[in-house]
Amino acid sequence: MNTKDTRHSLIEKQISSEKVFSGTLLHVYKDQAELPDGSSSVREWIDHPGASAVLPVFESGEVQLVRQFRYPLQEVFTEVPAGKIDPGEDPLITAKRELEEEAGVRAKNWTSLGMFHPCIGYTNEIIHLYLAWGLETFDNHVDEDEFLHPVRMPFQEALSGVINGKITDGKTITAIMRAASWWKTNHPFPLDLKL
Amino acid sequence: MNTKDTRHSLIEKQISSEKVFSGTLLHVYKDQAELPDGSSSVREWIDHPGASAVLPVFESGEVQLVRQFRYPLQEVFTEVPAGKIDPGEDPLITAKRELEEEAGVRAKNWTSLGMFHPCIGYTNEIIHLYLAWGLETFDNHVDEDEFLHPVRMPFQEALSGVINGKITDGKTITAIMRAASWWKTNHPFPLDLKL
Repeated sequence: MNTKDTRHSLIEKQISSEKVFSGTLLHVYKDQAELPDGSSSVREWIDHPGASAVLPVFESGEVQLVRQFRYPLQEVFTEVPAGKIDPGEDPLITAKRELEEEAGVRAKNWTSLGMFHPCIGYTNEIIHLYLAWGLETFDNHVDEDEFLHPVRMPFQEALSGVINGKITDGKTITAIMRAASWWKTNHPFPLDLKL
Repeated sequence: MNTKDTRHSLIEKQISSEKVFSGTLLHVYKDQAELPDGSSSVREWIDHPGASAVLPVFESGEVQLVRQFRYPLQEVFTEVPAGKIDPGEDPLITAKRELEEEAGVRAKNWTSLGMFHPCIGYTNEIIHLYLAWGLETFDNHVDEDEFLHPVRMPFQEALSGVINGKITDGKTITAIMRAASWWKTNHPFPLDLKL
């Protein structure tokens, strides 16, 4: 949908860029940008390395999710396993590593569910999404500094949670919706999913 | 899904908080947090006032979207009309204002599609989602500093764009998927939507 038709009258050009905060996780920039009418404005944004997330589906019809406390919202969320991409890393490798580390699961079969942008207003983060099946479990080793509880539920329960608002995490919503749509067309094994 | 079952062994407590950047848009904090095992760690996060977004549906079966250049990604995106909530404002009022300002559209009928969290790792932003119909158009007055092009397309085309990855903005994906699901149950007027 990002066609060029009207782009010339929308684009903003970087005039200058200043790093205003360099943290452990966050890297914040304050830029001056030239707007389409020639005026200038401040643009503040976060530089992010990108992430990968995966929805793992068991032949029982259950999906493997994780529960994690998210500090900015002071709340425990139900999420797909996910993590940041290391420099130069293939996003699929990231997804495989996070599935092992966060959920103690390996998968024989992987398919891409494309990517999406969680927060286009103030970060350049891209999240690559995958669907995995043909799963095997093992004792998992959670990252130091990362407290997670794996949780399984029927794929349909997760899908209903996305629609009725019980699941509210953006990457989890997008992964589950795209996975459900993909499954209805490709169905590696039978699942009755109601969208 | 945010039940209390395992919460006690996941929560992190604030030890201290420091505002490390105060910008026009971004307010960045660096906290020390006590982890569930008693150790401590840095948590960096963005304080955000929250936002509202709306999917407006015409009786022609088209939806009203906007195209906007997003500086952090240096790309033009196709999005639902949306904007930040003013202090103390009802999110529905925000959605109505943004629909008028960004798209030049007013709506007789509104329903909530719930809320979601675009980026739980490093911001407390909540986005309230709405579906609107019974639309009338008028000459729109775009916010100063905001360059937008309204664009209409069939609801089905937007839905397909979400699934096939042509639409990549998180709030737009969530609004369109929840709206499609709501419409299939409630159908204020007939629309043939394939999920």
